[in-house]
Amino acid sequence: MTVTEHGVRNGVDTAALFATVDAVKGDPDIAKFRFRATNTWVSGTHNRSTIHAFHGAKQEMTHREPFTFDADHPPVLVGKDNGPTPVEFVLHALAACLTAGIANIAAARGVNLTEVSSTVEGDIDLLAFLGLSDEVRNGYEQIRISFTLRGDDPDKLRKVVEQSRSRSAVFDIVTNGVPVSIDVDAG
Amino acid sequence: MTVTEHGVRNGVDTAALFATVDAVKGDPDIAKFRFRATNTWVSGTHNRSTIHAFHGAKQEMTHREPFTFDADHPPVLVGKDNGPTPVEFVLHALAACLTAGIANIAAARGVNLTEVSSTVEGDIDLLAFLGLSDEVRNGYEQIRISFTLRGDDPDKLRKVVEQSRSRSAVFDIVTNGVPVSIDVDAG
Repeated sequence: MTVTEHGVRNGVDTAALFATVDAVKGDPDIAKFRFRATNTWVSGTHNRSTIHAFHGAKQEMTHREPFTFDADHPPVLVGKDNGPTPVEFVLHALAACLTAGIANIAAARGVNLTEVSSTVEGDIDLLAFLGLSDEVRNGYEQIRISFTLRGDDPDKLRKVVEQSRSRSAVFDIVTNGVPVSIDVDAG
Repeated sequence: MTVTEHGVRNGVDTAALFATVDAVKGDPDIAKFRFRATNTWVSGTHNRSTIHAFHGAKQEMTHREPFTFDADHPPVLVGKDNGPTPVEFVLHALAACLTAGIANIAAARGVNLTEVSSTVEGDIDLLAFLGLSDEVRNGYEQIRISFTLRGDDPDKLRKVVEQSRSRSAVFDIVTNGVPVSIDVDAG
């Protein structure tokens, strides 16, 4: 390997990346993570989440600061537009996960990137949300994401996107679904 | 109905909510929405999404301002912690969607809320993400959300949560999955 391959490429510290992979090979429990968000209702459809602590690498950790995010509905959906809708945050999560994977995988393969941009769109029929249909689903019917990549050989770039898709946590969640349990304290 | 039922309850303009439902009954195409996010890679696992324009109610619309969100990995996952991880945004979206639904449904039913808070957790094994296993899935194995509600009769509050779950867009997306297509311009 060249020095570059174990240095920083695409802003990815590949030496640290390979060291992390090696550490997990030695102790797979390091890879068990538990992420969290807390949410508080503000008023109407406006609510706010805080993302700070998580469990990973066999210990309780925190982000360097608590990150807070407002969600709301726009006026056309009877909200006050204090933030994006929850379904728009899903689109952000999907694009962000695939893009982070692209940067990591390209770096690990020695592929240079100069641009990664994407537009992600989701089609949703709100008839179900409004209680007017039991035939359309509540969520997106389909999601499309269009990537523009610039950097090394286009064929290598396309293979990097494909590998990111095959390893993306959010792509898996959004395409395959996850069991969700809900507990209610209505004291 | 009492004046209160057609006024504002829980910060929800129930008159506008019922008017919206009536409008959609008259023209179901109003309920077809298309949401969007654009994402730009910054460096390493750090990238940024902008959420602004969307299509709905048969017209192109925008939020009152462009909302931007950074995503990144924490140092333990070889990032610089410039924002939450993409998978944490999924937890925020889920809690936010269920909470907005709770406020709307409670208002429509004449149920008063004084508090809605929640904690949402997702368990994920990053062995697959690190390329070290084809047996564990890439995404969350399970998600748990715990709600605390205060307000009117606890039994009514529990039923409101159940109705919100049954109409939630993000709950449907996350539990049932959505087809996602990816297009790549690697020119």
